[in-house]
Parts: sequence; structure tokens; C-alpha cells
Amino acid sequence: MATSSPPIAARPGAAGAEPTGARCAPVTREPLGAEDAAALARTLKAVADPARLRLLSLVAAHEGGEACVCDLVEPLGLSQPTVSHHLKVLVEAGLLTRDKRGVWAYFTLVPEALDALAGALAGALAAPVAPGPR
Amino acid sequence: MATSSPPIAARPGAAGAEPTGARCAPVTREPLGAEDAAALARTLKAVADPARLRLLSLVAAHEGGEACVCDLVEPLGLSQPTVSHHLKVLVEAGLLTRDKRGVWAYFTLVPEALDALAGALAGALAAPVAPGPR
Repeated sequence: MATSSPPIAARPGAAGAEPTGARCAPVTREPLGAEDAAALARTLKAVADPARLRLLSLVAAHEGGEACVCDLVEPLGLSQPTVSHHLKVLVEAGLLTRDKRGVWAYFTLVPEALDALAGALAGALAAPVAPGPR
Repeated sequence: MATSSPPIAARPGAAGAEPTGARCAPVTREPLGAEDAAALARTLKAVADPARLRLLSLVAAHEGGEACVCDLVEPLGLSQPTVSHHLKVLVEAGLLTRDKRGVWAYFTLVPEALDALAGALAGALAAPVAPGPR
């Protein structure tokens, strides 16, 4: 077998690989990987829509974090099928759960999912700052 | 002038306006308005992309939350113009600042912007839970 060289391509600082002059701070922790970034982006896309943000907020504003679909269409000023589509996206993203009771569907916030989203965002993006007042 | 009736359309519980049987929890606080939702959605759209999340994370992973563009292209495995486009979106969203020094551009995280994003998300969507352990 032939001896193979390690797959190091254009590593910054490698001799001759990069122009000199760039003075970057060293990497101090592991950045977000491709798979984690894709998963986080999927959930963020589900909430990155004005109608869906308002739906989540409307559900959250109801006592117990639960609301009937019959109370969600009117405040949004959108058609019932459009509201149902947005609710479906939020359920598929795990941010709401859906419960059919009688003729109405009820939607409940999943606070852990929102906490996890906020936590993932903060954890992935928080700068490792020096100790002291922020 | 003619006497006008108040603009109450299909308010749940209004006589004859809604089918009976829906039992919704009352609204306990003001839900997110249309303008706030649009603004929050805009910022969320800026981060709801795997490449942009990885860029933010890479910048954050550098000491001091600053990185040279020359260190951001290689880890992403994308072309320089594509990376520059994503960085531009993040700068326009106020999540990064850009500083040209010599031949290189340096990008710095804006922690307040990320804090504000996380805070807006949490504030808009947090369910008003009963007091007690979460």
C-alpha cells in the first residue's frame, strides 16, 4: 500500500497555504456541526414566520397555554385553511400539540420545545466572553 | 350621524355568533402584534439557515467573538461568494458587525442582538404558567 499524506487542505497557518497578515483569534470551543445546524435551522424556519409567531403567541396567551382553533382564525385575519396549514407546521416542528375534542381541535404549547430552541440558539451562538460584567 | 354598533365581529360567546361547545381558556395576556411578529420573523429568518447558524457559531467560537473571513470559508465547505452573501445577511440583521482591516474583513458577534432575539422569542411565546416548580 502507498503511504498517504494526512488530509490537511489549506489549513490556516500551514506553510505556504495562506497569505500572511490575517490575525485571527484562536478557536476556543467546538463550533456547531453541520447536522446540528440543519436541525436547528429546521425548527427556526418553523417559527420564522409572522403568522406562526402570532399563532404561538396566541396559544401562549391563553390560560394553560391551550387554545381552540376556533379562537385562532379570527385574530390572525387569515383564512381557516391558511391558519390550519400554519398550525400543522408548528405541530410537525414539535412546538404545539393538537387534540381533537368534539368538533374542535385544541392546540397546546410545548414549553420544553421552545426552551430547547432558545437553549440551542443561545448555546450555539453565545460568545465565550471573559469573566466579568457583561 | 347614524349610531354605529361597536365593531365586535364573531366574538366567541356572543349570542348566535359561534357554535356552542368550544370551551377555550381565557386570554391572560396581550399576544404578539402584527408588526412585532413581522420584525421578529425577519431576524429569525436571518438565523434559520444552516450555513448562517454555523457562521455565527464559528465567529462565536473564536476568542472575543471575532473572526477573520479567511477562517470562515474553509470550515463551511462553501464558496467564498456564498459565504460572503451569508455574512452580509447576518450583518444586515444586526447579528454581526464587519470591520475591514488591511486585506481582510473581520466579523464580530453582537451578543446583545442575540440576547434580544432569544428574549423576544421567549417573551412572545412563554406560556403564563401557574406559580410553582417548572
